Amino acid sequence: MSVPYLINSDKGYVPASQRIPSVVKHLVSDRAKKALDLVERFVEEECIPADAVFTQQIREAGDAHSSNIVGRFESHPSVIEDLKKRAQELGLWNMFLPKNHFKEEGAGFSNLEYGLMAEYLGRSITASEAVNCAAPDTGNMEVFAKYGTQEQKAQWLKPLMDGKIRSAFLMTEPQVSSSDATNIEMRMHKEGNEWVLNGQKWWSSGAGDKRCKIYIVMAKSDPNNSSKYKQQSVILVPADTPGVTVHRMLGVMGYDDAPHGHGHIYFNNVRVPDSNMILGAGRGFEVVQGRLGPGRIHHAMRSIGSAEKAMDWYLARLNDPARTPFGKQLAEHAIQLERVARSRVEIDSARLAVLNAANTIDEGDAKSALKEIAEVKVEVPGVLMNVLDRAMQAYGGAGVSQDTPLAQMWASGRTMRIVDGPDEVHMIQLGRNESKRGGALLKRIEAQKEKTRELMKQYGLKNEDPLAINRVSGKSKL
Amino acid sequence: MSVPYLINSDKGYVPASQRIPSVVKHLVSDRAKKALDLVERFVEEECIPADAVFTQQIREAGDAHSSNIVGRFESHPSVIEDLKKRAQELGLWNMFLPKNHFKEEGAGFSNLEYGLMAEYLGRSITASEAVNCAAPDTGNMEVFAKYGTQEQKAQWLKPLMDGKIRSAFLMTEPQVSSSDATNIEMRMHKEGNEWVLNGQKWWSSGAGDKRCKIYIVMAKSDPNNSSKYKQQSVILVPADTPGVTVHRMLGVMGYDDAPHGHGHIYFNNVRVPDSNMILGAGRGFEVVQGRLGPGRIHHAMRSIGSAEKAMDWYLARLNDPARTPFGKQLAEHAIQLERVARSRVEIDSARLAVLNAANTIDEGDAKSALKEIAEVKVEVPGVLMNVLDRAMQAYGGAGVSQDTPLAQMWASGRTMRIVDGPDEVHMIQLGRNESKRGGALLKRIEAQKEKTRELMKQYGLKNEDPLAINRVSGKSKL
Amino acid sequence: MSVPYLINSDKGYVPASQRIPSVVKHLVSDRAKKALDLVERFVEEECIPADAVFTQQIREAGDAHSSNIVGRFESHPSVIEDLKKRAQELGLWNMFLPKNHFKEEGAGFSNLEYGLMAEYLGRSITASEAVNCAAPDTGNMEVFAKYGTQEQKAQWLKPLMDGKIRSAFLMTEPQVSSSDATNIEMRMHKEGNEWVLNGQKWWSSGAGDKRCKIYIVMAKSDPNNSSKYKQQSVILVPADTPGVTVHRMLGVMGYDDAPHGHGHIYFNNVRVPDSNMILGAGRGFEVVQGRLGPGRIHHAMRSIGSAEKAMDWYLARLNDPARTPFGKQLAEHAIQLERVARSRVEIDSARLAVLNAANTIDEGDAKSALKEIAEVKVEVPGVLMNVLDRAMQAYGGAGVSQDTPLAQMWASGRTMRIVDGPDEVHMIQLGRNESKRGGALLKRIEAQKEKTRELMKQYGLKNEDPLAINRVSGKSKL
Amino acid sequence: MSVPYLINSDKGYVPASQRIPSVVKHLVSDRAKKALDLVERFVEEECIPADAVFTQQIREAGDAHSSNIVGRFESHPSVIEDLKKRAQELGLWNMFLPKNHFKEEGAGFSNLEYGLMAEYLGRSITASEAVNCAAPDTGNMEVFAKYGTQEQKAQWLKPLMDGKIRSAFLMTEPQVSSSDATNIEMRMHKEGNEWVLNGQKWWSSGAGDKRCKIYIVMAKSDPNNSSKYKQQSVILVPADTPGVTVHRMLGVMGYDDAPHGHGHIYFNNVRVPDSNMILGAGRGFEVVQGRLGPGRIHHAMRSIGSAEKAMDWYLARLNDPARTPFGKQLAEHAIQLERVARSRVEIDSARLAVLNAANTIDEGDAKSALKEIAEVKVEVPGVLMNVLDRAMQAYGGAGVSQDTPLAQMWASGRTMRIVDGPDEVHMIQLGRNESKRGGALLKRIEAQKEKTRELMKQYGLKNEDPLAINRVSGKSKL
Repeated sequence: MSVPYLINSDKGYVPASQRIPSVVKHLVSDRAKKALDLVERFVEEECIPADAVFTQQIREAGDAHSSNIVGRFESHPSVIEDLKKRAQELGLWNMFLPKNHFKEEGAGFSNLEYGLMAEYLGRSITASEAVNCAAPDTGNMEVFAKYGTQEQKAQWLKPLMDGKIRSAFLMTEPQVSSSDATNIEMRMHKEGNEWVLNGQKWWSSGAGDKRCKIYIVMAKSDPNNSSKYKQQSVILVPADTPGVTVHRMLGVMGYDDAPHGHGHIYFNNVRVPDSNMILGAGRGFEVVQGRLGPGRIHHAMRSIGSAEKAMDWYLARLNDPARTPFGKQLAEHAIQLERVARSRVEIDSARLAVLNAANTIDEGDAKSALKEIAEVKVEVPGVLMNVLDRAMQAYGGAGVSQDTPLAQMWASGRTMRIVDGPDEVHMIQLGRNESKRGGALLKRIEAQKEKTRELMKQYGLKNEDPLAINRVSGKSKL
Repeated sequence: MSVPYLINSDKGYVPASQRIPSVVKHLVSDRAKKALDLVERFVEEECIPADAVFTQQIREAGDAHSSNIVGRFESHPSVIEDLKKRAQELGLWNMFLPKNHFKEEGAGFSNLEYGLMAEYLGRSITASEAVNCAAPDTGNMEVFAKYGTQEQKAQWLKPLMDGKIRSAFLMTEPQVSSSDATNIEMRMHKEGNEWVLNGQKWWSSGAGDKRCKIYIVMAKSDPNNSSKYKQQSVILVPADTPGVTVHRMLGVMGYDDAPHGHGHIYFNNVRVPDSNMILGAGRGFEVVQGRLGPGRIHHAMRSIGSAEKAMDWYLARLNDPARTPFGKQLAEHAIQLERVARSRVEIDSARLAVLNAANTIDEGDAKSALKEIAEVKVEVPGVLMNVLDRAMQAYGGAGVSQDTPLAQMWASGRTMRIVDGPDEVHMIQLGRNESKRGGALLKRIEAQKEKTRELMKQYGLKNEDPLAINRVSGKSKL
Repeated sequence: MSVPYLINSDKGYVPASQRIPSVVKHLVSDRAKKALDLVERFVEEECIPADAVFTQQIREAGDAHSSNIVGRFESHPSVIEDLKKRAQELGLWNMFLPKNHFKEEGAGFSNLEYGLMAEYLGRSITASEAVNCAAPDTGNMEVFAKYGTQEQKAQWLKPLMDGKIRSAFLMTEPQVSSSDATNIEMRMHKEGNEWVLNGQKWWSSGAGDKRCKIYIVMAKSDPNNSSKYKQQSVILVPADTPGVTVHRMLGVMGYDDAPHGHGHIYFNNVRVPDSNMILGAGRGFEVVQGRLGPGRIHHAMRSIGSAEKAMDWYLARLNDPARTPFGKQLAEHAIQLERVARSRVEIDSARLAVLNAANTIDEGDAKSALKEIAEVKVEVPGVLMNVLDRAMQAYGGAGVSQDTPLAQMWASGRTMRIVDGPDEVHMIQLGRNESKRGGALLKRIEAQKEKTRELMKQYGLKNEDPLAINRVSGKSKL
Repeated sequence: MSVPYLINSDKGYVPASQRIPSVVKHLVSDRAKKALDLVERFVEEECIPADAVFTQQIREAGDAHSSNIVGRFESHPSVIEDLKKRAQELGLWNMFLPKNHFKEEGAGFSNLEYGLMAEYLGRSITASEAVNCAAPDTGNMEVFAKYGTQEQKAQWLKPLMDGKIRSAFLMTEPQVSSSDATNIEMRMHKEGNEWVLNGQKWWSSGAGDKRCKIYIVMAKSDPNNSSKYKQQSVILVPADTPGVTVHRMLGVMGYDDAPHGHGHIYFNNVRVPDSNMILGAGRGFEVVQGRLGPGRIHHAMRSIGSAEKAMDWYLARLNDPARTPFGKQLAEHAIQLERVARSRVEIDSARLAVLNAANTIDEGDAKSALKEIAEVKVEVPGVLMNVLDRAMQAYGGAGVSQDTPLAQMWASGRTMRIVDGPDEVHMIQLGRNESKRGGALLKRIEAQKEKTRELMKQYGLKNEDPLAINRVSGKSKL
């Protein structure tokens, strides 16, 4: 970068590649380390300053009435296109697509390497899109790369990888507990060569953006199949297909996340050709499960990045010389230092857990990393909430207002405990799997006790309970 | 091992070396992996069954009056010597002494490799001593290896490494806040070629054991030194030096931890030659700090092992077919599954943090790993307490009684939040160090805001606050 | 009420007066019980249904461009005036002004009695204003009633009590740590018979509303006074005084709380006559402290009401027959039931604490209830956050969106941990006061130990430590 | 008391009767207030100093072998009889037996009044027995008073009320999940006029004491009864009945609680006459449930007292002038002050909840107070654990050792989360009952929404969602 105005001027600055946790370092190639440092500088020097510009462009988009809600979703801030150009110049593009997994050419990094980069992307609201690594496109591109036909790839994967269009994944429905995906009710039935879809979806993230051209939709194609896991299919629905209505956007704690947004969408006799089917009718669960692994790593590492950003703001506040409640700077208040320490401990442990999960995928696949992925799915959002809450509290009123990024990060972070299944679902699953070892452990403990009894005899011990009193009918024998 | 009665009979059993976390695997040599599996089997098949024998031998030691308190500390259970012989046959001895750090020959493992083994040692009350890796001897041996003269090494390090004697480190005092070591008051003054010590120490762990022959003692040799950190020295005091009285042992939640124990010791004109000084007068803090790093890793990994053992017992209980409150097995109670999951998440993250700290030491030294060590010092005991509490609760009355190892593990684990400095001291230190970045971060955030203002102009935006209303004297201008 | 469409149709409904906690019942007059039931029905049947109307009227106020931010603060929803009329018909007006404390005629209830009512007001966003018991007017009216001159009362208290105008209290400033009010910097200096104010204030809640006619402002009138607590004065500034600019409104997690809002206000040579002074120059702290007690009870009881409303929504969700994740209704998921129970425990305890604090004020004054007030100031918002978080989680995506009141309640509730001083300030103060007993307790414990020593002798006991071993120079004496 | 050596010498001392929470005061008679102050002084001045004497008498009881475990349970410390005499002189005896509930004459106090006293009893290990208000005798006396025949009362209730004998309640069994009492397996079958009991019981608290003469035993008399709640009976078994063996005592975290203790008891063809039946065969659940209410209040208030005692020790430590880590007294460390404050908030709220539950019983009966009792059953032990943990941590090593009462209080307090049913059982029950309101609340919320829709029309509003965008097939309509 030509004008290293920001980071280089900070004399104590240590580049990201030199702050990789010790155990992970040797798993990161030199090329990835270079890219990592570039990502950090791009985010800190270009994306973060552009975040507020992005927000303001949405507000002012086009005309005097810009703050009306439709305008907010019709707009496309020019700053994001400028950042995309800049990212491509820097060679930062599609880093998410893991090497050795797809024929398609991503940037050739491992999940662990991209994970390290995703942490920095998570510090800015524009960065992920700027380098074409934004959800839900990343997961959707993986679906196309993994399961798409040549035609599907040409029509949708190509422009997605080029950053020309965006996409959405439509699964959750308002009227049922979608946390259990077998509850999903949207119907699709076949008429001739076409599938006809009816129903509604919500939390269709990204569907607010006018550039969102393609929906990947899960719906019930075979409701009477004896296996609950074969009733669903996943099919492609172009956003402008007749019968599709984006009814409204969903707010997140008062934020509309425009223009991306979270759509509530109606399907009224929406017809798409059979060739739009992904993988085959009845294989919806297969597609959904294949999609989830790396995406959860991305979410988790971006959340780690959010937590680190919250720490930055927190520490900056503590060291603001203008803040001296009760005669000393906030950085001298032990309650704050304890919270800083706790935050540091939580973040550092959680980061290691995510990187370990990423590496487990790299060494096998998402399936072999089920446990590790579930662990970070529940751990990381909790850590992020904790750190944000502490930072907000240190900022007082500023912490809940528009004057810091903390409040919006909190709102967004809060959804992480719900998105892709609420905590509870993952906890129960994780607990149930862990619990399966219990039977064998019970046997092992019994075997150890048996061995103890043998040893007791061997050593001539009475093997009695240390608190034995053996009082028979009121009289003690011992 | 000739009769693999236990683990091998468990068909689903996966050896320790195959359960090393993904990111850490490549840092572990094949030799270490073999040793690790051997440690696991030795602990599970031989040490754990021997634990109750050890306890019972203490109770019955020698005569009918064995349960009196002195007898408990005079005894030396024969089972521990048998385990030591067995360990030496297996080649499991002194694994703690890290390679490349000392001339003395340990087992040649890295801190990370030994850390993995220490986890298994932490599952048994006899295992650490059985393989000559028990605290505080390990730290004391490091002190000798690092700072000892040839004579000191010959006299004390040799028999310690051979498992012939034991040792104690005497630092904490009852009458002051020893969490701040500059408060330590025991005096030593020079008379001729001798140092004379007066004062008292407590929590002198290991001093109960009759085989404990040598005390490494911190005392104030130069109370008027202008630097608080140069007033203290560390000196060797043989346990049988006249003037030394082990006044009493300290209980831990009702346990006396005999014969090891935690001593409260009086020093009354105790004289030792100047040649007993470690490193030199006034260098006590240097010695103490040099001693602490790896020992905290050992403690932490043993605590991880305790937490895993608690999980084993927890899971065994959940799957005990005889337990069916309210019509279903405990393993079907979602509240328990959620707690199991939370425990799994906490343990796995914490383990990675400890291994990362160990590797940071391996790559540099304890000083370069200050932050990582402090993090696990506060994180791990908290995790252990959580897991134990959940397991205890699932066991009901059995959980707090002598019928499970949980209650004693809780008592012992609770001290980990105090030993080597209470949580609070480490938290404040960690927080303070972290907070130092605040000034630079404040500047960075300001620079980013400045850049935003430039961009706003460049993009022709009004850069106003989204909630600006500019109402002047009751009338809105906008 | 003529059409008891709501509560009466619910056969299991038990009126509020019959759900007063047992220990409190006898402290509530029959008149207050009647009013309480009336409040409950007014809130449930009229205010809650009107809440969304209020919100929508703000959005549509006046013209097509209504969603612009200025419009939102210029509007005055007609529904609120209709509710006010209705409340007055029902005799529900100014219930907050405690009997026996002021000459002015409130509704004649005690703080405890009004506290019970405030719980129900806290369930609706329109209810408090509808019955003229909305903050910050309540506290401001108390200031006028307590400290105002006849002229001040006539000009401001009268229309406030009639619900004709609204008011704001301006204290907090953005550039300093206002949690320590001695840091407040706004200057006021005297020129002739006038005071001239310069500086800025923020979090001036209520200042967004065009009907907000009067500001009560704290500023530094005597910056060199040797007592930090005598440097500040409190003075009246009509909102339309030249030099006053409401620069912008502050958001709370994405909500603007229009038309009430939280103002950021500039004062540029704002001139008011000396007769606007409250109580006298230099007595600002006195005014501020006199104002705070009952207001904190109101906040706390409204928060209890919010928590109960969150419970209502939570329980409704759990029993929604359409929600059956994993084959059973949410109400059958034990994790949810445990959280419900915890919420119930937390709310019920906290309510008792607030009512006890209210009664302590009633029996003495706010000063005599300092401890009790501080306790609920920190306890209640924490409870509210917990309950809301659990309810949000049970609702999944709906919980963070506009489809439930939970998200906005969370945002609003979160400020309660900051408003009127952040938790930390109250905790430290509470802790410090509590700690003052420590010296006497140390003496008492020493005296008890001394008495024990006497008794030991008297009973012929050796009074030794249970773990004494007295091992002298390696040999045990016992 | 003749020599008010302790409390009266503390000038700042405020008697217990003047520290009754504000809302509760008027529910306490003058006579109860006097008794309360007497209890406080008796506990502080006589019982607490005697606690260590009691402990030491057990250790030294009778002969040189006193520390053997049987001796510990055979002994009866004379100090307790002296305290009992003293208590009777003071008129402090059987205060637990609530007025108006039984023909038997207790001290004539309400549950609330005795609850206040129980708080002070909870500060000492000897006090409850000294005033004949110790568990489990209190609950057992209630059983006799409520359900006993004249003969049963004469034989057992009389000497219990006179403090001549002690008793135990035998319910829990080691081999099943007794948290669900329907699982209890001990059998009793009738032979002629006798019942024959076979099986085992544990956690039979009090059964260690040689003075424990009577067991109240629950066993299965009708295992095939179609109602699970009619299979059990409660019957009297004198401790010296042939076939009864007190096999061993159960430890609590390393403490044996001698001589009281917690027994593990075998029943081998134990024969008792039919006249020993309580209430009638098959009515065991009725007896058990009738027994539990007030006992839970007693436990809870004693736990509040323990928490207050922990606070006393905590505050004493903070103000120990000898403790100055890092240059200032502990009382100046903000982390400690925050914890003190949190403890104060938790204790004060919990106390109010217990007193409210007690008063709910007083106004009705234990059945009408089910919710309130369950709430404090789960809340109070949690508070006690929190406060003890904080105090222990402030004491460092002393906190877990025999040098403070904290460690033993922790051990004992921990059982409170298990005794009389583990937390989880009460939580689920509480949650389930609360959840029953959900259906009606769902309807109410729907009715409110319907009313909103009417109002929207009435006010001419479009009632649309604030984030509606209505984009049809890619084009926005709005």
